[in-house]
Amino acid sequence: MPADARIGLIGLGTMGTALALNIAEKGFDIAVFNRTTQVTRDFAAGAGDLAPRITPTETLEEFVAALAKPRAIILMVPAGDPVDDQIEALRPLLDDDDLIIDAGNANFHDTNRRVAASDHPYLGVGVSGGEEGARHGPSIMGGGAPEVWARVEDIMLAISAKYKGEPCAALMGPAGAGHFVKMVHNGIEYADMQMIAEIYGILRDGHGLSEDEIGKVFEDWNTGPLESYLIEISGKVARARDVATGKPLLSVIVDAAGQKGTGRWTAIEALHLLTPIPAISAAVDARNISSRLQERASGQDIFGAAPQRFDDLDLKTLEGALIAGKILAYAQGFVMIAATGDVYGWDIDLPQVARIWREGCIIRSTMLDDMAAALADHAGDNLMRTPYFADLMKTHHGALRHVVAGAALNGHATPALSSGLAYFDMMRTARGTANMIQGQRDFFGLHGFVHVNGATDQHGPWAQD
Amino acid sequence: MPADARIGLIGLGTMGTALALNIAEKGFDIAVFNRTTQVTRDFAAGAGDLAPRITPTETLEEFVAALAKPRAIILMVPAGDPVDDQIEALRPLLDDDDLIIDAGNANFHDTNRRVAASDHPYLGVGVSGGEEGARHGPSIMGGGAPEVWARVEDIMLAISAKYKGEPCAALMGPAGAGHFVKMVHNGIEYADMQMIAEIYGILRDGHGLSEDEIGKVFEDWNTGPLESYLIEISGKVARARDVATGKPLLSVIVDAAGQKGTGRWTAIEALHLLTPIPAISAAVDARNISSRLQERASGQDIFGAAPQRFDDLDLKTLEGALIAGKILAYAQGFVMIAATGDVYGWDIDLPQVARIWREGCIIRSTMLDDMAAALADHAGDNLMRTPYFADLMKTHHGALRHVVAGAALNGHATPALSSGLAYFDMMRTARGTANMIQGQRDFFGLHGFVHVNGATDQHGPWAQD
Repeated sequence: MPADARIGLIGLGTMGTALALNIAEKGFDIAVFNRTTQVTRDFAAGAGDLAPRITPTETLEEFVAALAKPRAIILMVPAGDPVDDQIEALRPLLDDDDLIIDAGNANFHDTNRRVAASDHPYLGVGVSGGEEGARHGPSIMGGGAPEVWARVEDIMLAISAKYKGEPCAALMGPAGAGHFVKMVHNGIEYADMQMIAEIYGILRDGHGLSEDEIGKVFEDWNTGPLESYLIEISGKVARARDVATGKPLLSVIVDAAGQKGTGRWTAIEALHLLTPIPAISAAVDARNISSRLQERASGQDIFGAAPQRFDDLDLKTLEGALIAGKILAYAQGFVMIAATGDVYGWDIDLPQVARIWREGCIIRSTMLDDMAAALADHAGDNLMRTPYFADLMKTHHGALRHVVAGAALNGHATPALSSGLAYFDMMRTARGTANMIQGQRDFFGLHGFVHVNGATDQHGPWAQD
Repeated sequence: MPADARIGLIGLGTMGTALALNIAEKGFDIAVFNRTTQVTRDFAAGAGDLAPRITPTETLEEFVAALAKPRAIILMVPAGDPVDDQIEALRPLLDDDDLIIDAGNANFHDTNRRVAASDHPYLGVGVSGGEEGARHGPSIMGGGAPEVWARVEDIMLAISAKYKGEPCAALMGPAGAGHFVKMVHNGIEYADMQMIAEIYGILRDGHGLSEDEIGKVFEDWNTGPLESYLIEISGKVARARDVATGKPLLSVIVDAAGQKGTGRWTAIEALHLLTPIPAISAAVDARNISSRLQERASGQDIFGAAPQRFDDLDLKTLEGALIAGKILAYAQGFVMIAATGDVYGWDIDLPQVARIWREGCIIRSTMLDDMAAALADHAGDNLMRTPYFADLMKTHHGALRHVVAGAALNGHATPALSSGLAYFDMMRTARGTANMIQGQRDFFGLHGFVHVNGATDQHGPWAQD
């Protein structure tokens, strides 16, 4: 067996399989290894036209020997201990300059730790787009040293999604920066999905639309400013029928949302970074609350069914609310990414983040192209204050107000949309109400306040007692 | 010098001084030590009538020698490393059964760690009520083993606040349980204060009331269901005048809220515990956003001043909204405390928590007495679903709706109140909208969903492709 595969991949699960085929299809020779040998054999046997580029191996030694030096090895194993275990198993077989690439769903803190501890070049790479993306072009968020990234950049660009020909793959920054950006991507995804679900609720319970009618609404919106993968699939989900019963699919799905943790990580990290992302946090909380089915049923028994019929808001208003809410959720996410500069010393290029999210990943949308332009033209500014998006907000914040108000009055929960609106109003109010909080804190704890004349550590009259 | 002081205290800062005087006043002999000797001398010199019960010491050896065996030593040093450093300095001087009591603001994770690592009996004790409370009766939340707590329970009960004669001190559970409950107390405090600030904003900018008029509103509310320390001091803060200028105090305080971190800890821990506390999290976020003064001013330049005049909601409605919002914030906090059972194996007595919060601490209120009763009569139920508070919610959730809706339409940010309302509506809706989220997740990631017929791991028609 020739020792000349350009790259190796360990872990032939759904994502690993798809990524390996993608790499082979783009013309790179790849060696693969899986703990269970039969999986490797089945994979190789099913590789069809791509088989000549794929070297299946049955031991780690054989795998390592099949790679051209200096080696580059992608790990696609479950996040957590399996990554550390796999690295430990590999180390005795590697040369000093062999490169380890964790392309799984690692927590970026783990990646930071592994980069610091690694005696080999190391990349932490976030891959978004699910199986379909991994197979035909994901969004790829790299983390590590530039000279290390350079060793596999051609592969990463080749296998990534393309937006009008531009590859959706880039180095985000050092160490865990790639996995961090992927985490925030998922946090934004939570908020985007939750806001869509909130509007879906108003269409269903407020307007009384059927699933097909709701599907039509999302199809229409997908030809306008909201054009995005998530709006597109919302239409498809609404139109879909249950295989077993033929009923509308949405009507047979229990309304308890699962989660794999990345949204929660985002919310936790935002608190550590002192960067509020209330719309994203609200979406994380909403998924958790949704899973409390019995409690919610018991609440309805006591208080009566919450969502009331109301259809005084037209579809244009609902669409506008979703546009405004979406902008605010993304604005929060981008501010959070920028905050890594102070805390981790990363200098993540926000326009580049937006650019590589335009294709391949779950939140891909045309609006991200405008976001990339806005963030490039107005570096350092909150997305909602950049001229293009400020104009959109001026046009649509009224719609968001009407939706939040109508939902509140009629018992429709809109945690993400209302959190987005509160963020917008706080961030546009020069004179807020925290002076009351500072007054209270000084009263009970002599914590002091800043005087409008600029003097710091001032106290109320009680301090003289 | 006789070696017979019942208890010792290290750290004569504001809180340590107050606690030492409180202990002496209740008839317990106490030895004190401070790193800076002059502080100890000044403290002893100023102790007046209480001096005979106080033994000032100038070295750790002298301090330890002044205590009756087995010794009990309260640490009132800054949270974090100083606690570990102080314990290290003490250890060589202690006997095995000498008791260490950390009564500072430790993070409960640190207390868990210290209890596990300690070769001495150890208590982590949360003390709430500020300087005034520490001096004349705080709320005391103990953590540790029952037999250890028993050694100092008489002191803790004696120095604590009393609610109609009942001491506001109790053992909450093992290890860090006391500091945990104190942390959640502070999280609830954040939400309570934020909701008051939101209503204050509507009174000021919506109704156009003067500070004195606002003070009168809070004074009136303090004679009704909202009667509480925080409402009381809100009235006093509103009525107060700036010492330097004579202007209303609220008008000269910069509206940027400070924080010492316990609210943020609460929000982070709730995410770890998978227990949503959206009203508390929103309050934490709101403080952070308030501190972004320049960004907020820039936002106002672009979008115009947010809060518009609106006075169509009468004071009764605003009061009702605050009642409903408060119940929901406290409900979230209590659920979070209960969640420690699954994760830490603690069995914290929720009615007892409510009882010891009735006096001494910042969130003390008459409503907490009703909460104690409701939680005792309906163990395991969410506070908002207990009959007494369910009735209050039935009466007042309409007011909360009108306030959230009016605020949304008129540019008043109500992040905590609107998060509370969204929580209420989600928790009373048997059929929510997360089925859309599950449909999306299955579409893009084949994550599967639960069918309403009970079948798990079901998929939409796309899974057949």
